[in-house]
Amino acid sequence: MANRSCIIRLSRYKNALNRLKGLNFVRVFSDNLADAAGVTAAQVRKDFSLFGITGNRRGGYKVEELADQLNRILGKNQLHEFIVIGVGNIGRALLHYPGFERSGIDVAAGFDIDPAKYNPQSQPPVLPLEQLGELIKTRDIKLAILAVPDYAAQQVLELVLSAGIKGVLNFAPICLKAPPGCIVNNINLETEIENLIYFINAAENRK
Amino acid sequence: MANRSCIIRLSRYKNALNRLKGLNFVRVFSDNLADAAGVTAAQVRKDFSLFGITGNRRGGYKVEELADQLNRILGKNQLHEFIVIGVGNIGRALLHYPGFERSGIDVAAGFDIDPAKYNPQSQPPVLPLEQLGELIKTRDIKLAILAVPDYAAQQVLELVLSAGIKGVLNFAPICLKAPPGCIVNNINLETEIENLIYFINAAENRK
Repeated sequence: MANRSCIIRLSRYKNALNRLKGLNFVRVFSDNLADAAGVTAAQVRKDFSLFGITGNRRGGYKVEELADQLNRILGKNQLHEFIVIGVGNIGRALLHYPGFERSGIDVAAGFDIDPAKYNPQSQPPVLPLEQLGELIKTRDIKLAILAVPDYAAQQVLELVLSAGIKGVLNFAPICLKAPPGCIVNNINLETEIENLIYFINAAENRK
Repeated sequence: MANRSCIIRLSRYKNALNRLKGLNFVRVFSDNLADAAGVTAAQVRKDFSLFGITGNRRGGYKVEELADQLNRILGKNQLHEFIVIGVGNIGRALLHYPGFERSGIDVAAGFDIDPAKYNPQSQPPVLPLEQLGELIKTRDIKLAILAVPDYAAQQVLELVLSAGIKGVLNFAPICLKAPPGCIVNNINLETEIENLIYFINAAENRK
């Protein structure tokens, strides 16, 4: 069974392949992908073998074919729409982040409780939180990003899960836990900065 | 030696403590912190013992004292300013993200190569990339967030490291590697979404 780290590596290989396609590369070797993803070539081959992807020692992998296989494994042909709850600084940036479209992932809509932020005509639209359930249902959306304040996060999590969301990426600075059958990944920006601060200081103090 | 996961847990304990302070809590137990950080109480005690923090079985830990100790360990009394390179959607959101200030972390300035984005009078200011070296030097800044396009990321990384930056949080959708003596953490938004997509599909297919 693949774990989170393995799937993150597959995404990285896939991103590298997309860049190679742009450079008209036809073949790629595990060493190339290893360099791009910051792992060893043995790790690349191990990850691929877990999903029955085999290369050929002489010719490596075909870029186009491998990219298709990885997209299929990552399930992006089936599911690629998500919503953003909370249209503050971070939420707005995510709504308009060009990298998602480039990766074939679409933002269906943003949601907020502040009427000043509603904009049903914009692309993607920003809608009242009350319309969340309907949109999730009609578009069969399973993915949400939370970019709400910490005090609202738990309540919003319960709301989106009860509306049918199965996976949440949480930017609220609080560690949310997923009930069984759902997945919640937390990205805490303060924690990331604090982490860097610690390791910089540790390195300075070692001098 | 503490690893990344351990330091991330310390940040989470510290964030929980700050919330408890706001609620006028004086004491806290390892079980409380475990719940807040999504780990076991044994893990909390193990993390604390690594840094010589001891509680008392009956009385737990004193909130104020423990928060001070964690801040000292995290090194936030020494180092707390950072810069943001690339003032696009994500960069702008990070420049104005209120969570940093709340955690005692300050954005010194944003930098861009596009003159249309310069704004030396705003708070924080947005400055031309040419002024980066000077600001890093005069303010002794060691931390940078990169929010530049993927094709510029490696070049910008080299620029900031040569100017004296020791820790980088990279939002560009490319996996950057740190040379010795520096630390680079990558946050790839597409990869995070793809990760959720994979696990949602895996759960659906298991049904």
